[in-house]
Amino acid sequence: MIGWQDVYKVVVAMAPLYVALILGYGSVRWWKIFTRDQCDAVNRFVCFFTLPLFTFEFTANADPFKWNFLFIGADAISKFIIVVVLAIWAKCSSKGSYRWSITSFSLCTLTNSLVVGVPLLKAMYGQNAVDLVVQSSIVQAIIWLTLLLFVLEFRRTGINFSADESIKNSQVQSAVEAGKDLEGSTEIVASTGPSFWYLMRTVWLKLAMNPNSYACIVGITWAFIANRWHIKMPSILEGSILIMSKAGTGTAMFSMGIFMALQEKLIACGPSLTLFGMLLRFIAGPATMAIGSYAVGLHGDALRVAIIQAALPQSITSFIFAKEYGLHAEVLSTAVIFGMFVSLPVLIAYYAILEFIH
Amino acid sequence: MIGWQDVYKVVVAMAPLYVALILGYGSVRWWKIFTRDQCDAVNRFVCFFTLPLFTFEFTANADPFKWNFLFIGADAISKFIIVVVLAIWAKCSSKGSYRWSITSFSLCTLTNSLVVGVPLLKAMYGQNAVDLVVQSSIVQAIIWLTLLLFVLEFRRTGINFSADESIKNSQVQSAVEAGKDLEGSTEIVASTGPSFWYLMRTVWLKLAMNPNSYACIVGITWAFIANRWHIKMPSILEGSILIMSKAGTGTAMFSMGIFMALQEKLIACGPSLTLFGMLLRFIAGPATMAIGSYAVGLHGDALRVAIIQAALPQSITSFIFAKEYGLHAEVLSTAVIFGMFVSLPVLIAYYAILEFIH
Repeated sequence: MIGWQDVYKVVVAMAPLYVALILGYGSVRWWKIFTRDQCDAVNRFVCFFTLPLFTFEFTANADPFKWNFLFIGADAISKFIIVVVLAIWAKCSSKGSYRWSITSFSLCTLTNSLVVGVPLLKAMYGQNAVDLVVQSSIVQAIIWLTLLLFVLEFRRTGINFSADESIKNSQVQSAVEAGKDLEGSTEIVASTGPSFWYLMRTVWLKLAMNPNSYACIVGITWAFIANRWHIKMPSILEGSILIMSKAGTGTAMFSMGIFMALQEKLIACGPSLTLFGMLLRFIAGPATMAIGSYAVGLHGDALRVAIIQAALPQSITSFIFAKEYGLHAEVLSTAVIFGMFVSLPVLIAYYAILEFIH
Repeated sequence: MIGWQDVYKVVVAMAPLYVALILGYGSVRWWKIFTRDQCDAVNRFVCFFTLPLFTFEFTANADPFKWNFLFIGADAISKFIIVVVLAIWAKCSSKGSYRWSITSFSLCTLTNSLVVGVPLLKAMYGQNAVDLVVQSSIVQAIIWLTLLLFVLEFRRTGINFSADESIKNSQVQSAVEAGKDLEGSTEIVASTGPSFWYLMRTVWLKLAMNPNSYACIVGITWAFIANRWHIKMPSILEGSILIMSKAGTGTAMFSMGIFMALQEKLIACGPSLTLFGMLLRFIAGPATMAIGSYAVGLHGDALRVAIIQAALPQSITSFIFAKEYGLHAEVLSTAVIFGMFVSLPVLIAYYAILEFIH
């Protein structure tokens, strides 16, 4: 049984995030400190400096040789289940739509793991939980966000999807994971060959321009080198990264508060779409993660961490992509904003319930 | 004797500050991430959020009942010496000018004690040195910056100074320190009574609008209450302050880098004025501090800290005031920028030399 002091510990860990969020919101709405154009400057500051160094700091300090591969496996299985279900729905249901499959995938799987997840899971289960959530954030940044970007580009360049969505869908996935060999696979995509390489180029360029994926890839590369040959980062370099990365959590939440203040309405889509988003985020996501965890035999704290990290608030990056590609941006904006407020009681409820499993 | 490892320790502590500075400079000059208007947004973010909470954090955690009053006394004496010398110079020398007295006072006494001083002195002499530098920063923020603001307002409102500058000068000072009783003092200022109260109102309004003096006063008030009645700040509040205050050093240096990038020239005034500023900052300031310390009998590390903290780079606030009041802003801009680069070797030289005193 968790007691009130455990709940209080979690609230203590989360409250500062909300304070930074409210300061950001108030700076625009109440105190008029920033004009609309200036808000973008704070956002850029976070995007180009504090957040990438924050991501790098966590990624570089996670020893890849000590990763919990059961945990990663559970994560992969749960995502695979979601992809398959959504693909079947898009193909077979009369209401099925490829566009909604992409958005539902975002809503089910992509979380704000580092900024919100690290302090929350540290308060709940200690340092081991932080290691796990960092691992899932790395996988998310390198594999799943890349995949999402790829699918969104695919859709935009207007390649004909009517033929056989589910097959192509899984091909896209394997192409991203393997990074090659799509050409030789089937005749369905043969005609789209040149488009495909153009598409790949666009996706890689986008990733190369994105400071966060940069930070993640450089970070994990460093982590491999450092742990393979037991190299320690010189303290002068470590300090130079820390000076900005320490600002990561505060500035990221502040910038999210600014983002909220800039929206016309805090709930941009209607109540039924909001409910839909919340159900996918806080019920469907953790539920498939529980299935994945059960399949690989996770238990104890690792199982609890797996389920709770799947119920974290919506990833901000997923909203940024949705906006850029004009795909249900208002649904994801609501999921980010409303989800941030709903998440605290929901996560505490999960925390309390998960005490009873073993 | 200090060895290379001591010097390296200092360089390790200072290098991150320069990295953040260079990132800020590069974001404007090289990578064009911010437009000129947007630069102001980053500056406001630092000014209204990270820096005040950073100041509060240090001030609130300094126990006022454990202050080193010898150290504060040495600081007061050294500043008194400077005020007297400058007042005599302004009155008696043919080249003497009230305007240059104000600027020289800034150059001699006002340092960037928290952002640069804390990491530097921690690397040199440990936590005790941090306590001392925080004390001097509180005195600077509450007494000396207020005094400077008062004198600048005094000058702007055009009260006749020709009568007897040095007398009035000391009256202004005592008026600020006592906060009252100027009316009854002499007939010289009798006619300026209403102006005087108008002036006082302007200064207090300015201070009340300045988030940093706010933070300092609230911080020291809390420190008094907390240490008198042994109250501990609730961890939820502590965390909410820390989330932004941790960003203080990085964002402050970043914003200083932006400030540098926005200047037409890094050295805005001629070489002779630059040299003049450097001499006052790095020689005259520490020298009078040494006299003050000798007068009160400081010795050991407290003496070393006293001298070194007087040789820190120029306070950014002193430049902001100079710019606002149109008083030698280019000299103070140069002192801030050029001083930041000169300070590292100078401070290490002081560190090495001061090993030989007892």
